[in-house]
Amino acid sequence: MIDFEPHYRRVEQLIYAWARAIDEDRVEDITTMVLDAGRYTVKSRFNHDRELPLAVIDCHNAAQLRDRILSMRKANVYQPHHYRHILSGIHISGQTGESLEVTHNFLIVRTMDLSGDMKIFATGQCHDHIVLTPDGAKFKERLFIFDSRVIETLMIIPL
Amino acid sequence: MIDFEPHYRRVEQLIYAWARAIDEDRVEDITTMVLDAGRYTVKSRFNHDRELPLAVIDCHNAAQLRDRILSMRKANVYQPHHYRHILSGIHISGQTGESLEVTHNFLIVRTMDLSGDMKIFATGQCHDHIVLTPDGAKFKERLFIFDSRVIETLMIIPL
Amino acid sequence: MIDFEPHYRRVEQLIYAWARAIDEDRVEDITTMVLDAGRYTVKSRFNHDRELPLAVIDCHNAAQLRDRILSMRKANVYQPHHYRHILSGIHISGQTGESLEVTHNFLIVRTMDLSGDMKIFATGQCHDHIVLTPDGAKFKERLFIFDSRVIETLMIIPL
Repeated sequence: MIDFEPHYRRVEQLIYAWARAIDEDRVEDITTMVLDAGRYTVKSRFNHDRELPLAVIDCHNAAQLRDRILSMRKANVYQPHHYRHILSGIHISGQTGESLEVTHNFLIVRTMDLSGDMKIFATGQCHDHIVLTPDGAKFKERLFIFDSRVIETLMIIPL
Repeated sequence: MIDFEPHYRRVEQLIYAWARAIDEDRVEDITTMVLDAGRYTVKSRFNHDRELPLAVIDCHNAAQLRDRILSMRKANVYQPHHYRHILSGIHISGQTGESLEVTHNFLIVRTMDLSGDMKIFATGQCHDHIVLTPDGAKFKERLFIFDSRVIETLMIIPL
Repeated sequence: MIDFEPHYRRVEQLIYAWARAIDEDRVEDITTMVLDAGRYTVKSRFNHDRELPLAVIDCHNAAQLRDRILSMRKANVYQPHHYRHILSGIHISGQTGESLEVTHNFLIVRTMDLSGDMKIFATGQCHDHIVLTPDGAKFKERLFIFDSRVIETLMIIPL
């Protein structure tokens, strides 16, 4: 049995850093946390359980993710809002080649800037593949599986 | 003062494993995480504070818990739904004999499979007695104390 | 780069202890977790981002905080309720002099004692300055920044 203990803090802090970047409206920073060839996918539990391919977001590399965020900043018109990530249950379940397999649960509360309305926007489980590079820990793959089939309106800001 | 530091990871991962088993619809797996003579109780804060005995679930051993889950699978008729556990504040507060006393806060979001409706199903504090056996950490006792006196409809899936 | 690893557990457990004291209705205990000259502030993200000074609570020392809690116990008339803190993402970001700079996300669910109604009362980010004294870790400064501009009715119990 492999001892993952030495990796827990780095893995945890990488996952937290991603959440902070989004919550603090520095969304661009998440693109520095994925490998150039890294993948970022957001999919419903319903589709994931049935192995249906449709995803809400599916970026095959960091450049696509940067593009998505640029579109959020420049092209999309939407009511200003922000997220708050509450994460729990970080678990390193295994290792494939050089990447650690990690899961955790997430709950994201969305607050509308103008009205102040808060609601649970998404809950679910995230499946990560994390590589410890000389430049620090990086995501090779992030798969967010959200519990509800219903995403209110369009999802603008990445999870 | 006893140093609980060496036990934190195992305690934490046991608590997380229980939550994952339920969230991932492998509820049967929780029965392998309690001692044969282990106890599992779910009670309202109102009753707990007044030392009133009534509990929503009170299994006195692993066999009773297995029975409860079998009934959920075979006998109960209910609208399909699942939980998402968000846990925080894991704290080892003491040791009685061989078992560690542990508390943490929980928040459980329930999602209805068909409508996609999400709601905060329960929040509260969990009091655990955890024993480190040669087979790994196990629960000797789990007491979930939920904050609200109101549990919507029947509680089918254990917390 | 400073290695904060040795401090994580003490920092985490101090933050959790504060939350437990409030959730368990031992609010007075939080005054023992701040330095005599410690500061405790609760402010909206809206005001914080614009460097506006208005805060919902702003205690400049432990005595003021004790006073605030005494007022809650003796003078305020309000519908009985309590909180449940769900915290995540604890991150030690730096050190200034003797104090560690720490951030984390919070979600607080409020339950009304009589009706059992639960709602997300506040989410946000907390900025702490924590000092490791011979008497244990203490808060030199706590700044709770809540996401929504709207706080329902009066905030009675501190966050």
